[in-house]
Amino acid sequence: MIIINNEIERLDFSREPRGLYEPIGYTLSGGGKRVRPTLALTACRLFGGQEESVLPVALALEVFHNFTLLHDDLMDKADTRRGRQTVWKKWDANTAVLSGDQMLIEAYKLLAQLPAEQLANVLPIFNRMATEICEGQQLDMDFEGMKLTEVSIADYMEMIRLKTSVLLASALQMGALIAGADEAAQEALYNFGIKVGLAFQIQDDLLDCFGDAATFGKPIGGDILEGKKTYMLLTAYQQGGEAFRTQLEALRTAMPANKIHNVCELYNRLGVRQRAEEAIETLTREALAFLNGIPQNEDTAALRSLAEKLASRNK
Amino acid sequence: MIIINNEIERLDFSREPRGLYEPIGYTLSGGGKRVRPTLALTACRLFGGQEESVLPVALALEVFHNFTLLHDDLMDKADTRRGRQTVWKKWDANTAVLSGDQMLIEAYKLLAQLPAEQLANVLPIFNRMATEICEGQQLDMDFEGMKLTEVSIADYMEMIRLKTSVLLASALQMGALIAGADEAAQEALYNFGIKVGLAFQIQDDLLDCFGDAATFGKPIGGDILEGKKTYMLLTAYQQGGEAFRTQLEALRTAMPANKIHNVCELYNRLGVRQRAEEAIETLTREALAFLNGIPQNEDTAALRSLAEKLASRNK
Repeated sequence: MIIINNEIERLDFSREPRGLYEPIGYTLSGGGKRVRPTLALTACRLFGGQEESVLPVALALEVFHNFTLLHDDLMDKADTRRGRQTVWKKWDANTAVLSGDQMLIEAYKLLAQLPAEQLANVLPIFNRMATEICEGQQLDMDFEGMKLTEVSIADYMEMIRLKTSVLLASALQMGALIAGADEAAQEALYNFGIKVGLAFQIQDDLLDCFGDAATFGKPIGGDILEGKKTYMLLTAYQQGGEAFRTQLEALRTAMPANKIHNVCELYNRLGVRQRAEEAIETLTREALAFLNGIPQNEDTAALRSLAEKLASRNK
Repeated sequence: MIIINNEIERLDFSREPRGLYEPIGYTLSGGGKRVRPTLALTACRLFGGQEESVLPVALALEVFHNFTLLHDDLMDKADTRRGRQTVWKKWDANTAVLSGDQMLIEAYKLLAQLPAEQLANVLPIFNRMATEICEGQQLDMDFEGMKLTEVSIADYMEMIRLKTSVLLASALQMGALIAGADEAAQEALYNFGIKVGLAFQIQDDLLDCFGDAATFGKPIGGDILEGKKTYMLLTAYQQGGEAFRTQLEALRTAMPANKIHNVCELYNRLGVRQRAEEAIETLTREALAFLNGIPQNEDTAALRSLAEKLASRNK
């Protein structure tokens, strides 16, 4: 993470026009766990590649990820991100649109630093990933306008696969590719990333309800108040059916704190927490299985440990 | 143009999720003169290249150009484009943001079809162009918030170089590059494109005042009513100084038709029309001079003819 943060600082966004570049520098200096570039570096090292060779990809991933957050925050009208004002809130909507666009272009500028042959191999993977993330965001927005009865758990899993998993999976795949790993090994890491991403998102949904506000970093119950179609809500409907819908409807006008408390109670009664925990456990086990066919070294161990940590995290 | 339209139709945007792809198909089916892909094709043919080899670049340019229009229309709150509702107006702002993002990614997907070595040569040029267009759009927005006294004609020329010229120039350069033209020849075409773009934009500014609404395709005087800092307005201030500013200020509350009429009168009296026409003529002559050092064939003739047509167009 230190190497990534150093490299991100070296990207110079003090350029003119300030109105375009300042929000980009602001966004990238907001911290974050740098998970995606770290995955690319780890995958590259795992197969004996040099860290320097994967840096353009690692940085492009981080810049791209932050671009998606910038535009998502605009679309979701989110006021804060990582404890600071979002770009559209600190500046305005037009700034968020245009600086976001430039950030996406900056990601491709980083990729363009790769040697010709690697670029030709990496670009299609990066493009497919970028497309799938847009598709995931579109599905997420589509779900908002749909009824609880219209979104299945399978639909939801496909949405979070696109919106969350493919970025982690592609980071790992591209890291392995740069190191010269064969296609089977790339695919194993990709599949590991998909499963880890799904587990991560379900854990996120779980923490919205059963997390500790002090460690989670965002207020508990946000998804419940927004009526967001999370794994929790969809599972509750799957388990409780129309009776659950009626109970939920009765809470529509309840005070926020009461609503959160009562919905979590319903989740408990319907065994939703347990089902979510089981799903996370299964996905983590499936993820880890994909690591069996590849070289075992300290980087493989780091990936195992990451998957296990994500599955039991409380923030 | 027929080959381009056929190829654009073959890009399939009937994919799911519809909410993401339908606005892209809509935008690309809106017509337009397909100037940029045509320039890339012409430049490629001029140096003996095969049309098929430059198609990924030509299509990427057209998709990219339409992406900029989609996001610009959102930022400018423009209701119509090419006689149809703009995407943010027909759908909503979020759709314009996300479908625009995906359109930018689609441009890069088209580039990724190039052979590895050409991709490595083309991508940096494409990225620089994309960046400069964002910078130009930012300057354009910056100028809106500035006083007439704060924007020089040189500032304006730099803005339109970025916002309009570099796309034409890069289309020509990339077409030549794909055909294997040497760097001097690429540069000559690039510089030709820069000058033609500047002449084109000044002609556009001129037509807002002295064009014929029936042929121009948009209402006359739009720039005047918006107070847009065009070549006309900035030249009028350069020629008329504070006296012009006072006269303009006096028209602030005038009825739209009167305001347009009187501002055009002021432009006439200050010789602005003549200065604009001279600038267009000079830029066109400078553009044509760049074509002297390259092979002369029917494609060179087509570029000459294009430059001359743009300089004397009335729409």
